[in-house]
Amino acid sequence: MAVGHTEFPIMHAIQGVKLGTCNAGIKQTVRDDILVVEMADGGSCAAVFTQNAFCAAPVQLAKSHLSMAPRWLLVNSGNANAGTGKQGLQDAFACCAGLAGEVEGIAQQVLPFSTGVIGEPLPVAKLTSALPKAVADLAEAHWDQAARAIMTTDTFPKGASTVVDIGGHPVAITGISKGAGMIQPNMATMLGFIATDATIDQTLLQQCLAAATEVSFNRITVDGDTSTNDACVLLASGTSTAPEILADSEHYAKFADAVTAVCKRLAELIIRDGEGATKLIRIRVEQASSAAEAVQVAKTIAHSPLVKTAFFASDPNWGRILAAVGRAGVVNLVLENIEIYLGTVCIVENGGRSPLYTEQDGQRVMNQQEILVTVRLGRGEACEEVLTCDFSYDYVKINAEYRT
Amino acid sequence: MAVGHTEFPIMHAIQGVKLGTCNAGIKQTVRDDILVVEMADGGSCAAVFTQNAFCAAPVQLAKSHLSMAPRWLLVNSGNANAGTGKQGLQDAFACCAGLAGEVEGIAQQVLPFSTGVIGEPLPVAKLTSALPKAVADLAEAHWDQAARAIMTTDTFPKGASTVVDIGGHPVAITGISKGAGMIQPNMATMLGFIATDATIDQTLLQQCLAAATEVSFNRITVDGDTSTNDACVLLASGTSTAPEILADSEHYAKFADAVTAVCKRLAELIIRDGEGATKLIRIRVEQASSAAEAVQVAKTIAHSPLVKTAFFASDPNWGRILAAVGRAGVVNLVLENIEIYLGTVCIVENGGRSPLYTEQDGQRVMNQQEILVTVRLGRGEACEEVLTCDFSYDYVKINAEYRT
Repeated sequence: MAVGHTEFPIMHAIQGVKLGTCNAGIKQTVRDDILVVEMADGGSCAAVFTQNAFCAAPVQLAKSHLSMAPRWLLVNSGNANAGTGKQGLQDAFACCAGLAGEVEGIAQQVLPFSTGVIGEPLPVAKLTSALPKAVADLAEAHWDQAARAIMTTDTFPKGASTVVDIGGHPVAITGISKGAGMIQPNMATMLGFIATDATIDQTLLQQCLAAATEVSFNRITVDGDTSTNDACVLLASGTSTAPEILADSEHYAKFADAVTAVCKRLAELIIRDGEGATKLIRIRVEQASSAAEAVQVAKTIAHSPLVKTAFFASDPNWGRILAAVGRAGVVNLVLENIEIYLGTVCIVENGGRSPLYTEQDGQRVMNQQEILVTVRLGRGEACEEVLTCDFSYDYVKINAEYRT
Repeated sequence: MAVGHTEFPIMHAIQGVKLGTCNAGIKQTVRDDILVVEMADGGSCAAVFTQNAFCAAPVQLAKSHLSMAPRWLLVNSGNANAGTGKQGLQDAFACCAGLAGEVEGIAQQVLPFSTGVIGEPLPVAKLTSALPKAVADLAEAHWDQAARAIMTTDTFPKGASTVVDIGGHPVAITGISKGAGMIQPNMATMLGFIATDATIDQTLLQQCLAAATEVSFNRITVDGDTSTNDACVLLASGTSTAPEILADSEHYAKFADAVTAVCKRLAELIIRDGEGATKLIRIRVEQASSAAEAVQVAKTIAHSPLVKTAFFASDPNWGRILAAVGRAGVVNLVLENIEIYLGTVCIVENGGRSPLYTEQDGQRVMNQQEILVTVRLGRGEACEEVLTCDFSYDYVKINAEYRT
């Protein structure tokens, strides 16, 4: 059940970046479940990964391959290859080697990514025998089918694409993401693949991606569960006619803004597809003493099952929001200075319900599909936003029946 | 929907402690919603309160009255008097003064407690006009009806009672609790009232209660939401023939153990009545490097909506448990050293699924109504347990419809 505006956009192809998909029968019998991405020689690759201490075998391998100037991504859905021990690492490497053989590269230039059930052995033979078909399918126009091949419990493919002018030349940025549950990314999401034709060296590209994910994928949560397989990759093919993007330049600022906008849209689409979601909730914490404090308060609200079920019921139960702010661990919080707004309706001020507040006003906001909650802490200047969704019967249903 | 063994026990009366209840029409029209507890002169009173930064008006007032040798407790259900600003404090005090007038005490010797909806003004007139009836009802035998009068979304009254031998004399400890949602107590629960006829001074009684709540009420969670109104009180009437209990004595150790056992039972009953609960889950973390680390890992598992929905579905989805351990924030966690057991069945060892594990074995454990999850971190000697329940359709239903 998707919330709001989620249609797949027009995707600007990235010259030098090709995508191919096919069905390997991992969990799906018909839908494509393998994606291969190939970048032409001479580009840069940046990536960020989950901070879960138990990162999956493909994540461990991808991290180690990142310094080898990778040119290929190999993604499968239906199996996460997580919690699979040494065998999992061997399996992930075997898949990389299989792809390298098909494309005449080396295994260390392949970054592997897996998403799906945790703890099942990866079906290596199925995967490698499907690779020739995926490689034969490689084309610059295949972003749409790529977005579909990486889906698991997602109900729609997620894409974002933009073109930005760099020194009088167009630079395109195009990306896809997947994810609907086990979503509280920490340094990356599960999964995002973005490419650009900009010319930019690896160090600067990595800096750009890290900054963009911090304010996009790291600001969303469905259920507070950080996945073992989160990863986000940014490929730069260098095929644009635009000048090289250099550190601390005006071009970099413009490029970084555009990458951030694409990341934010891809992150927002994950929340719009949150498992069981019926509402998109933007939690904005203002007047915090630091960005970290603002995020901490926003995430405490965003993770509260009581707040999330109240949103599902369209119940303006602001006491639950207030209680969540109160338990967020902020030292010396002064209740009298807090203001809470639902949309533009002030519900809490001076330590209690606003005298002007009416349930009718609150109800009007809660009936909307997209809701802004603003909390003003009265402690400083920092402001941060976190995106989340509500908690419905369908969340329980989807996760209770996931493996059946 | 209660999990397992929850019948109301035989409650040993505490000489010198009387309880009276009545209906004040706060939210209930028939069921009693007011409880008055009166302790004879000369006893001691200890109490612990919520750590939520926005503690409710009655909690603020009770904290300040604790140093005044309180002899009366005044509890209402149906309204939390939280998020009610200065008016809330005035209202809580007016109720204390009302009771003091009835019993010829002073308002500062009354500890007020409220539980129910947050953010609604307390109906003071209804409450105070019902007090004479509650006071007329005071009797030592009224623990059962007291347990019923403090219920909100609870589906059954919760009590525990024991007698311990102190120096050849019986000492009784009897308590009641309430709570089913917004449960992750931090220093106290919402609400626990325990009394004993032991002779023990206030300082030692406070130390005893703080230690007991730390390993009982502070080790349970339904939804991770710490209430604004949590409180737990221990009254000692000093009417037993047993010798006074002194610090660092054998008698104190025995008494403290008995108080802890009563607190643990009252805490467990709250989880058995967790909103929508179908299963009781005991999460035991062993071989942690500190108690704090063990609690941190156990609570991360206990709060994971993915783990909780898997328990609801009786799905031995151990990957979700592993992922929760991995995101618990433990520094330098080594996956290869972790072992995870469902009941006595080893599911994870050496970084992956145990070679001896079968889904059938896991399923057999998951089908039980009470489940032990053991996580061995391989880092040290500390061991802690946290109790929680599963996450069901009914949790969403109860909390989506709470105010309607």
